[in-house]
Amino acid sequence: MNQLQQLSDRIISRVNANLMELEFDTSTFVNHALDHDKMLEFYAFYGITSRHPLYFNFKNSNIAGSYFLGKCYVGRSAIYKSDVRGDELKREGDCIKSAKDIPLVEDEMISILDSLLYKTLVHSNSHNPESPELFSIRNTISAHYANIHGSTLEGCFLGPFATVDLMNLHSCVVGEFSYVQVGELFHRKIDPGTVWIKNPHFEFKYKFKNSILDNFVGVTDTHQPRGVIYDFVRARDQEFERLFEVMHLEPFEVPGSSAINRYAVIKGKTRIGENVLVAQRALLQNATMGDGSNAQENSYIIDSVLEGNCITAHGGKIIHADVGQECFVGFNSFLNGGPDARIQIGEGCIIMPHTIINPSMPIQIPSEHLVWGYIQSPEDLATHTISLDALAEVRESLTVGQMTFSGKGSVFIGSFKDRLKKILKDNGALFKDGENRGHAQDDQNISYNIIQPYRTGERKGLYPSIRIKP
Amino acid sequence: MNQLQQLSDRIISRVNANLMELEFDTSTFVNHALDHDKMLEFYAFYGITSRHPLYFNFKNSNIAGSYFLGKCYVGRSAIYKSDVRGDELKREGDCIKSAKDIPLVEDEMISILDSLLYKTLVHSNSHNPESPELFSIRNTISAHYANIHGSTLEGCFLGPFATVDLMNLHSCVVGEFSYVQVGELFHRKIDPGTVWIKNPHFEFKYKFKNSILDNFVGVTDTHQPRGVIYDFVRARDQEFERLFEVMHLEPFEVPGSSAINRYAVIKGKTRIGENVLVAQRALLQNATMGDGSNAQENSYIIDSVLEGNCITAHGGKIIHADVGQECFVGFNSFLNGGPDARIQIGEGCIIMPHTIINPSMPIQIPSEHLVWGYIQSPEDLATHTISLDALAEVRESLTVGQMTFSGKGSVFIGSFKDRLKKILKDNGALFKDGENRGHAQDDQNISYNIIQPYRTGERKGLYPSIRIKP
Repeated sequence: MNQLQQLSDRIISRVNANLMELEFDTSTFVNHALDHDKMLEFYAFYGITSRHPLYFNFKNSNIAGSYFLGKCYVGRSAIYKSDVRGDELKREGDCIKSAKDIPLVEDEMISILDSLLYKTLVHSNSHNPESPELFSIRNTISAHYANIHGSTLEGCFLGPFATVDLMNLHSCVVGEFSYVQVGELFHRKIDPGTVWIKNPHFEFKYKFKNSILDNFVGVTDTHQPRGVIYDFVRARDQEFERLFEVMHLEPFEVPGSSAINRYAVIKGKTRIGENVLVAQRALLQNATMGDGSNAQENSYIIDSVLEGNCITAHGGKIIHADVGQECFVGFNSFLNGGPDARIQIGEGCIIMPHTIINPSMPIQIPSEHLVWGYIQSPEDLATHTISLDALAEVRESLTVGQMTFSGKGSVFIGSFKDRLKKILKDNGALFKDGENRGHAQDDQNISYNIIQPYRTGERKGLYPSIRIKP
Repeated sequence: MNQLQQLSDRIISRVNANLMELEFDTSTFVNHALDHDKMLEFYAFYGITSRHPLYFNFKNSNIAGSYFLGKCYVGRSAIYKSDVRGDELKREGDCIKSAKDIPLVEDEMISILDSLLYKTLVHSNSHNPESPELFSIRNTISAHYANIHGSTLEGCFLGPFATVDLMNLHSCVVGEFSYVQVGELFHRKIDPGTVWIKNPHFEFKYKFKNSILDNFVGVTDTHQPRGVIYDFVRARDQEFERLFEVMHLEPFEVPGSSAINRYAVIKGKTRIGENVLVAQRALLQNATMGDGSNAQENSYIIDSVLEGNCITAHGGKIIHADVGQECFVGFNSFLNGGPDARIQIGEGCIIMPHTIINPSMPIQIPSEHLVWGYIQSPEDLATHTISLDALAEVRESLTVGQMTFSGKGSVFIGSFKDRLKKILKDNGALFKDGENRGHAQDDQNISYNIIQPYRTGERKGLYPSIRIKP
């Protein structure tokens, strides 16, 4: 049996052992997702900069098409066309509140062991107070366009377009298009299309109807993604291929305070302001990025205008939309406007992660609103948005349409706004006069190194063991 | 002071310390050769195959534009656009006659320490019986298109287009366009344009006239190359650039037993036979490569036909020539025929390393001849060639034109022919029915990995420390 088959079999059996209780078998997904020929064909790459601590160690793995930045260890894993972006890893000496303010004894590192990540994004840093120096993903399989954001995982399966955010999961299955940010979970199966935020102070929950989910993000018998959002992404796959075919690209002209990743696609009449970050595998077409706005991995901004300090989280898609100042468009959101169905979003709105707006006529969302779920007409706004002022009044609980909220609305909004401020700061949106550097400034001047697997012989399909230090 | 300047200053002072006795200062050469901007710009690359033991370790160095294959350690060195090709390194268990037939305890490794190699070729393996497991280059500077072939060096300077072959040098200066294969040398200065082979059984010596040298391979005040041969090479530099700009090239179609390196230029009506090796940085244009022929690094074969089993050694240039079966065209030879001045070389000829043929009319060299020096007309053949049969008769000494030979001609020819057989075998020219694999077969399917330096910050210009194992 070849090395790639052995590798994926070993991962399947380890993850299955963790998910036995949930009676979940990952082999169907893995065996249908992996194309061993492609795992031989694509190169992997990692970034060298003077702004991020450097340590890469790849062993007994296939990392075809994947990108790495920051300190990272990969062992006995298959990481296919994924982005492992460690530019928010904590540094030696940093103090973590949740870890009793004890300073970190060394730079944090991402560690991926016995896992299979398929077109997955890994970003941020460990929010696990037990392992502040280790952002660990073990015995885990994640599917297409899943986001592993600041979450340590052990023995989990994440379905396509699922997001786990700032939490720890042990032996869990997260269904497709589910977003969870609930602290810690053990041995749980999260239904597809669940948007769930929970902490000691509040809880937000919404679940997509099966019919909607089936249309937008379904899975086949073999757990492969299907539906409108997957088709949208797949239709644009080819745009990225050119970036991988050439060594040097003429950089797109941007202000010196902004960074356009060399593996981003920029098309049409696109304008980039100051302090803008466009991450790898983002696609901008006829897009205006106002000062301090950003487009994270796997985001698409097409025929749209983002005013200043807008955040497009990983996997966010914004089409035919005008987005006001300081809006947040959450993970994997799909704002699918059209030429005759433009989406206008007022200032300071929070588009919750995994929101779908799919209008057949123009639609306006007023300023300072929270937006969630599935919206296809102006009528849906009543049951899928709430003004932040109204939400701030909530002291115990609230139900709007299918959404339930409990806890203090003001705390929810406050913590959300704090996080957005932090995101803007981390991304370099607030850079001025040399102060407040962030990714837009630090993720410029990346040298990309390329590594390839053995193409023949005993170790065919595996990458050589590589260790890189300053 | 920046890291690159520090690095080259350190190398200069170490090499100068070795060459103090010869009153040779390398700083002029180094400071005029190195362009720090280019050392930041170019990527380095190394090959991964299942046919060669894998170990790369690059530390505190700049290796811009260089290529590595086989086991190699590079420390505190600048290796610029060089080829370090370890596909002939000895393996664990190999027995070396000169080292009392004691089997090697480990795979041989190339080690380059405190050295600066500029557009240099490093190939073959250590012929130093004291260090059979280490092909070592220390405290050494080599200039444009120098060949370090199976030679261990310590404290040396090699001028442009110089070749050191199967020997050991300590604290030596080898002048431009000199070829030396004389066992071992200490504290010697070799005049430019010297072609010198010496062993216990025979000695061959030829020295180019200064006027010829000045025209073909001179150096400027700052030890940079100038002259016809350098101009020839420089005029074709651009042809190679395209190869470095794209990730994937459609491979040139060749028989399955032949290898065309992905970093070779193939142009015009070029035909490749069976068991052919075309190494990186070779250029073929309207070239016919007969079965078993090869073109090594920095060789150019233009408007020429090579019959079967011809060897074009590193840096050999063959233009408008017809080369018969089993000919050897030595290192850095310049066979500069023209449309009306075609060079015909009969079967079994040995064109000595560093031979220049620059005719203004057609010229024929009969079969089984040894050819050396500078030839520009048929009249020159009398003083620059000898039939192998006539040479075989020599028992004590012979002078032909400026060439002097002493020793037994038959031994000289015998050892030369043995070496050519070995070269053909090593290169895979004799591959048949799965037997006698060589470079033409083993150097196929190379995965090229790309590494780049820090482009900003404290370590700007240096490459990160990289260690690669299977």
